[in-house]
Amino acid sequence: DHIIICGFGRVAQQVYKQLKEDDEDIQIVIIHDNDAELQETLEPETLRLVGDPTDKHTLLKARVEHARALITALSSDADNVFITLTSKGLNEELTIAARAERADSEEILKKAGATSVINPSIIGGRELAMSVTKPTGADYIKDLIKSEEKDFMVGEIDLEDESPIVGSTIEDAGLRKHYGITLVAILRKKELISNPDLDEKLQAGDTLIVIGNQEQIERFSVNKNKERTHQSAKSQSPQTDE
Amino acid sequence: DHIIICGFGRVAQQVYKQLKEDDEDIQIVIIHDNDAELQETLEPETLRLVGDPTDKHTLLKARVEHARALITALSSDADNVFITLTSKGLNEELTIAARAERADSEEILKKAGATSVINPSIIGGRELAMSVTKPTGADYIKDLIKSEEKDFMVGEIDLEDESPIVGSTIEDAGLRKHYGITLVAILRKKELISNPDLDEKLQAGDTLIVIGNQEQIERFSVNKNKERTHQSAKSQSPQTDE
Ligand SMILES: [Ca+2]
Ligand SMILES: [Ca+2]
Repeated sequence: DHIIICGFGRVAQQVYKQLKEDDEDIQIVIIHDNDAELQETLEPETLRLVGDPTDKHTLLKARVEHARALITALSSDADNVFITLTSKGLNEELTIAARAERADSEEILKKAGATSVINPSIIGGRELAMSVTKPTGADYIKDLIKSEEKDFMVGEIDLEDESPIVGSTIEDAGLRKHYGITLVAILRKKELISNPDLDEKLQAGDTLIVIGNQEQIERFSVNKNKERTHQSAKSQSPQTDE
Repeated sequence: DHIIICGFGRVAQQVYKQLKEDDEDIQIVIIHDNDAELQETLEPETLRLVGDPTDKHTLLKARVEHARALITALSSDADNVFITLTSKGLNEELTIAARAERADSEEILKKAGATSVINPSIIGGRELAMSVTKPTGADYIKDLIKSEEKDFMVGEIDLEDESPIVGSTIEDAGLRKHYGITLVAILRKKELISNPDLDEKLQAGDTLIVIGNQEQIERFSVNKNKERTHQSAKSQSPQTDE
């Protein structure tokens, strides 16, 4: 149940850093062909494999069949396609996130089996444009995906059947009022509903995309299923969200 | 009142594309040393300058003294620092957005006079990590900064003194209820307040960071100052000033 990172260039190093910030107990295996570069940056307890990540045997040594996810972040799109195909062949269930440099590689990587594709040049170019037209909005997004500052971040919360807020409208669920978090979107049956109406009813199986600080999001995540007793104990006052 | 783009590699091309998507009447001047590459991609009416953007005379030809903003997106951090220093020397008021490749260049670019610095590898790496730990949240952010789909985007709205919502709480302003947009942050006196409390009062001079579709954001942006007549015609709900 580990995560494999292929490559250890600038992008892959950020992947490593971000995963560690999010969860310091996360199990990571890094595959990279330069041992010295790994020594410099990695925390001693991180598993590393010095070798060629496009080689099937290297991927097998990294126990790709038992991995939860693989992130292929080499600078060559061809290498990333090759790694995606090879690892998908070894583990059909694997979640694969791939880096793309050329715009037309996204489609190829998806066809090869990548679950998601990120193109740093595209995202970076858009952020640069935005930082001139909407500077505060651009800063906001930059901060949103930076998890070092736990002041605010994106959270993703699955709503189970037993959650007491299943069936209530967004207005009545009052996430902002009770938890200080903002619901910005709902993923429902693979469709993303952004800025849902306040009278939209939450359903079991929904994934809620929220913005808040880490503590608020964790508190909501833990309490969302416990709340039933708590809420019925209180009075039935109407609870509105803005 | 034009925007200068220095360079025309993968990142700069995205800058160009995004600026055009946001506002098709925007005045852009592109400085790039390869005419053939420009011919291929640019719309015929876009001003181009074939030359070296690190050369002061080229920047002067691009009328940097009268530009609103400059985006320097070369792949070399040293070139971007040089361009930042040179253009700041020619136009002190210029807004400069700079691309950085190395993590330690951000500080240098800021010292050189860049208003904002974007590092595509850092943002891309974070998005890759997030696409494994919070796949829906990562997709959401990707869509948020992609303006082609006008379904939802980040908007930035300045609140002027005369706006009728100045003085009301976020709850009473009811941006979600009346406009379908979500207020996610307020920039107030250079400080970003993320997920503000519902009883926080809006102040003149606030910049509101909202999420919505283009039409909703435009409607709010246009109506936020007109609403006074509309509101006073209705009822005299108390509006306090701070
Ligand atoms: Ca953050
Ligand atoms: Ca969008």
